[in-house]
Amino acid sequence: MHILVTNDDGVTAPGLLALALEIRKLGKVTVLAPDRNWSASGHVKTMERPLRVRETKLADGSSALTTDGAPSDCVALALLGVVHEKIDLVVSGINPNANIGHDVTYSGTVTAAMEAVISDVPGIAVSLDSKPGHGDLDYGTAARMAARVAAQVIANGLPEGVLLNVNVPCLPDDQIKGIKITRQGLRVYHDALDARKDPRGRPYYWIGGDFPTGVAEDGTDVGALAEGHVSVTPLQLDLTAYKALDILIKSKWDIK
Amino acid sequence: MHILVTNDDGVTAPGLLALALEIRKLGKVTVLAPDRNWSASGHVKTMERPLRVRETKLADGSSALTTDGAPSDCVALALLGVVHEKIDLVVSGINPNANIGHDVTYSGTVTAAMEAVISDVPGIAVSLDSKPGHGDLDYGTAARMAARVAAQVIANGLPEGVLLNVNVPCLPDDQIKGIKITRQGLRVYHDALDARKDPRGRPYYWIGGDFPTGVAEDGTDVGALAEGHVSVTPLQLDLTAYKALDILIKSKWDIK
Repeated sequence: MHILVTNDDGVTAPGLLALALEIRKLGKVTVLAPDRNWSASGHVKTMERPLRVRETKLADGSSALTTDGAPSDCVALALLGVVHEKIDLVVSGINPNANIGHDVTYSGTVTAAMEAVISDVPGIAVSLDSKPGHGDLDYGTAARMAARVAAQVIANGLPEGVLLNVNVPCLPDDQIKGIKITRQGLRVYHDALDARKDPRGRPYYWIGGDFPTGVAEDGTDVGALAEGHVSVTPLQLDLTAYKALDILIKSKWDIK
Repeated sequence: MHILVTNDDGVTAPGLLALALEIRKLGKVTVLAPDRNWSASGHVKTMERPLRVRETKLADGSSALTTDGAPSDCVALALLGVVHEKIDLVVSGINPNANIGHDVTYSGTVTAAMEAVISDVPGIAVSLDSKPGHGDLDYGTAARMAARVAAQVIANGLPEGVLLNVNVPCLPDDQIKGIKITRQGLRVYHDALDARKDPRGRPYYWIGGDFPTGVAEDGTDVGALAEGHVSVTPLQLDLTAYKALDILIKSKWDIK
């Protein structure tokens, strides 16, 4: 079992090391991660410029690879042959904030797992539901939960075209209530425009506002985290709105 | 009716102007588009740096706004208040290549429309199915088809949380067979690693390979284009794999 571990916070992020340490218990791990933070970067395929890959070391002294590409580029590069040995599973994380609801298309952590699935390799994204303004985070619990989920995937596989989006409450192991399989819930964004003037009097804009909240509905990722459960959401890359498809087909849309 | 027009190829792209010219026939148009090409950039929310917005002109002399943010940032900035007047519809394009199958999460064109829907504004993404190595493209047909779809959305609305992904064959008007409502089909990527050495002998990598193809299945975006139909696919931001959800819930995943 050969597992690629990547993330969107960059190769030096503590969440990556915590994840790699636990995933190593399941098989051989290769780390290929971005050389900088790519949070909220979305699903990228870098084609306008070439990418560099260089060897580096994680804080425990183990070898890793790093690139100037995005998280999804890391997965593409590895699967296309920068990593010579066949990769059986891709695990991405641990992101310091939850990736739930509409977050999933923005998330570098999740889109890295999407990139794996596009190449028919199982993908798992792992995030920790920490609160804004947290200090140093303990990724140990989330890493252990990620390894449990990965062990299930190794044992039982995943349906074709499906990735798992795992979100872990920021709680010690003994306060985690268990794992719940969930659907994607609703994120509520509180973005606000913060318009400022630079020292030369010219305007610039921050996308600011409060940290997003969510609708803690039963059966959703948001709801599971609120209860203290680990949320495991199977995601697919077919975004067709099938209910709307039926509505539109029955309407007057199919026109010459 | 106030319509925001944006794209992922940058404010100077001919597809943007062609689209704006046709959409202006339906209402007031504001253009806010990136100052550079963001193809295959994915769904971005720029939070690590502030964004500039400046006034510019399109090739027809009309006013436009441009920013150093991504396509989805353009939509966020406009809806958050950089554009003062309420926006009723966002139309993104015209992308010079089809955005079908798995392309949709990579696509700056499509993710701009996603960003609109996240803010409860209807969104339409428009792409032209040109072949690789095309010369100057005629965006006229695609722009007229986009305006027809936009007129339908203005008249009838869209189901909540749904955006439309419109792909137009690269054919003259009289060879277009009509509009088909489709589901997302299967893209087949032919990416390959192109490993090179720089003038100093150090390796670098292009994500190269052949242009993607698709599985031209009946009822899909790929299939509709192959037949000469305009493809209109309703997309949603709920990526839950519901079939897999049932399978996983019935398995041994719900564990303490």
